[in-house]
Amino acid sequence: MTKKNAFYAQSGGVTAVINATACGLIETARKHKDVIAKVYAGRNGIIGALTEDLIDTSKESARAIAALRHTPSGAFGSCRYKLKSVEEDRAQYERLIEVFKAHNIGYFFYNGGGDSQDTSNKVSQISKKMGYPIQCIGIPKTVDNDLPVTDNCPGFGSVAKYVAVSIREAGFDVASMAKTSTKVFVMEVMGRHAGWIAAAGGLAAENKGDAPHIIIFPEVAFDRKAFMLKVKQSVADYGYCAIVVSEGAHYADGTFLADAGNTDAFGHKQLGGVAPVLAQMVKDETGFKYHWAVADYLQRSARHIASKTDVEQAYAVGKAAVELAIAGETAVMPTIVRSSNKPYRWKIGSTKLSRVANVEKMMPKSFISKDGFGITQKCRDYLAPLIKGEDYPPYKNGLPQYVTLKNVAVAKKLSDEFIP
Amino acid sequence: MTKKNAFYAQSGGVTAVINATACGLIETARKHKDVIAKVYAGRNGIIGALTEDLIDTSKESARAIAALRHTPSGAFGSCRYKLKSVEEDRAQYERLIEVFKAHNIGYFFYNGGGDSQDTSNKVSQISKKMGYPIQCIGIPKTVDNDLPVTDNCPGFGSVAKYVAVSIREAGFDVASMAKTSTKVFVMEVMGRHAGWIAAAGGLAAENKGDAPHIIIFPEVAFDRKAFMLKVKQSVADYGYCAIVVSEGAHYADGTFLADAGNTDAFGHKQLGGVAPVLAQMVKDETGFKYHWAVADYLQRSARHIASKTDVEQAYAVGKAAVELAIAGETAVMPTIVRSSNKPYRWKIGSTKLSRVANVEKMMPKSFISKDGFGITQKCRDYLAPLIKGEDYPPYKNGLPQYVTLKNVAVAKKLSDEFIP
Repeated sequence: MTKKNAFYAQSGGVTAVINATACGLIETARKHKDVIAKVYAGRNGIIGALTEDLIDTSKESARAIAALRHTPSGAFGSCRYKLKSVEEDRAQYERLIEVFKAHNIGYFFYNGGGDSQDTSNKVSQISKKMGYPIQCIGIPKTVDNDLPVTDNCPGFGSVAKYVAVSIREAGFDVASMAKTSTKVFVMEVMGRHAGWIAAAGGLAAENKGDAPHIIIFPEVAFDRKAFMLKVKQSVADYGYCAIVVSEGAHYADGTFLADAGNTDAFGHKQLGGVAPVLAQMVKDETGFKYHWAVADYLQRSARHIASKTDVEQAYAVGKAAVELAIAGETAVMPTIVRSSNKPYRWKIGSTKLSRVANVEKMMPKSFISKDGFGITQKCRDYLAPLIKGEDYPPYKNGLPQYVTLKNVAVAKKLSDEFIP
Repeated sequence: MTKKNAFYAQSGGVTAVINATACGLIETARKHKDVIAKVYAGRNGIIGALTEDLIDTSKESARAIAALRHTPSGAFGSCRYKLKSVEEDRAQYERLIEVFKAHNIGYFFYNGGGDSQDTSNKVSQISKKMGYPIQCIGIPKTVDNDLPVTDNCPGFGSVAKYVAVSIREAGFDVASMAKTSTKVFVMEVMGRHAGWIAAAGGLAAENKGDAPHIIIFPEVAFDRKAFMLKVKQSVADYGYCAIVVSEGAHYADGTFLADAGNTDAFGHKQLGGVAPVLAQMVKDETGFKYHWAVADYLQRSARHIASKTDVEQAYAVGKAAVELAIAGETAVMPTIVRSSNKPYRWKIGSTKLSRVANVEKMMPKSFISKDGFGITQKCRDYLAPLIKGEDYPPYKNGLPQYVTLKNVAVAKKLSDEFIP
């Protein structure tokens, strides 16, 4: 086997544990220097490959790489940049291969969501056609938990834990104030099309009357009347009402409850602000005093309350990606396979990228309660293991100690500039 | 010394550690049953006293009381209810004494902010005049950290830690996305008139370029031009800009950047939503993609990331309150006295309630940097010890285990109803 370098890039929205994946990948690659010479990372994701802006991770100490395991965000920079289709812009793909060839890169590891798996798959195909076959391994990552085949997506478990812990804590708070003050609390969480994150809030409600009392999913068209009835009933029964709402909450005609009007590079609408809209709606109809929170990036960067299960799985897919490459695989993605629910047991499997690319896994209907405002036992059984365990980062002076890498650039070998 | 019962009530906005104070108070009282027979708690704060709705805390197990130490919110219910002045409504005060007399209550412990200390002081005075002298001990609590005399207020340290940790984590997140996506992140925090909480965000910035790059204090009139320059400079220098903004941010003429228009029982305006206003302002002027978060109740209920120092101090003031009462004191409040900065050393002292009541401690000017957008070393030296140490609650199935008390009512002794 010829010794080649590997390329690794982080893609799309970062998470509390994507660096744990990087850690697993780099630590494992370092154990196989006979096969993988060096791991180069793309500065700001795939853009780093297109612009030949590579980071030499071999310049980082073992200690720094180990610290990635407990550091949120994307240590090498990520990007929201979707490669066009091969038909539209073949030059981009050719440029990638050209850069990989120049740096003797034989392994392409792409850590992201559905779009990224699609890109990995295409790079694999084109590299073969161009006579410089690259082994392409996609690595799952998305807080939205919307990749198919894999039991769950690294990054999701930690957001799920953050959301469940937060609504439990806020619920306790509101319960103690409700007599004379706030009666309705609305917490907005991420999840454009799939309600996985919102559903995770439901884990906090273990006993009758526990917060949250209402969950608003993007899978269920918002029914204002039913919602108001439920709010009033909750206040009547428990003195207060705690609500988790997905940013993707929408009316039957598809209009989002809150629509900021902006779109990102993938053409997705930039949402935010459904919580204040909903809170005001409740105030107008019921007069109840409200408070609302929008967790936004706090939820996906909250490494301080990461799920141990999630951290372990994130590390494991990074490790498995290298092992798949060494085994000669290409156009595959390591997956998490659930072998048992109680006790929760999982192992690493793999799937073809063609089965994953651009497929969005929605919540099964059987996961949402009949009234559309809660989760079922089946959903709880699925979600519960994913938030299990704590994995605290080290602290100094009261603050978590996260690593910032040196990110030393690899000397460029190509003379021409490429503007993506 | 005649054996009497004690009355304890939680007042105003609850915190992550006000129950730790209740824990210290009840556990200490239980050790002195020769002096304090039982601790009765007011259901929903002082309203419980006015309506003779008392909770018999002796019905709770030692284990349940111990669990209060790690449970956020107000376990007996709190309230936003300010007693009118004695001149305006003497009947209310007389009613309190009447209820206390009926239940052989000789100690009044009131756990709250400036308003509550004022109430405690008045009850002490009136009880003497009415010939049923009650020992009144105020106990400090407020996330706003705005009580005078005491070094800091229990509740504040944990919010401070939450804010510093959160902006550090979100800062890492934004830094890794900034190349192609979000460049400006705005996090809104509590603090109507005093910028203590916003200032705590500054602790996260330990090295040049660290988040947050801008803090907006209620102490400094908002200067849009200077702000925009700073945002642009931060993006130019570091690639992104992380901002912590106080809900009380306002223009020179006093207008709040965001004003929800509602007022609470104390006549305070209910604020919220300055983050989206600021984010949109940045977008309009610079075109930078933004994200924003409003932590709201999440920040003050976040027992999962409480400051160990804060928990210990919260417990200590509860304990000290009982000790002051046993020592025969009245119209006093235990305080936290800082005896050394490095290493941080503190002890419990006490002050007269008259020195505390209705006095708001503002941030010294020397704590805010010259440009008005950051904190000074002096501020850092003051704040740093308050977020030190972690004090994790126990977890089960991935969720923190918080206690809900039985809250058994004491049989009423008075025939007349009182509607506050």
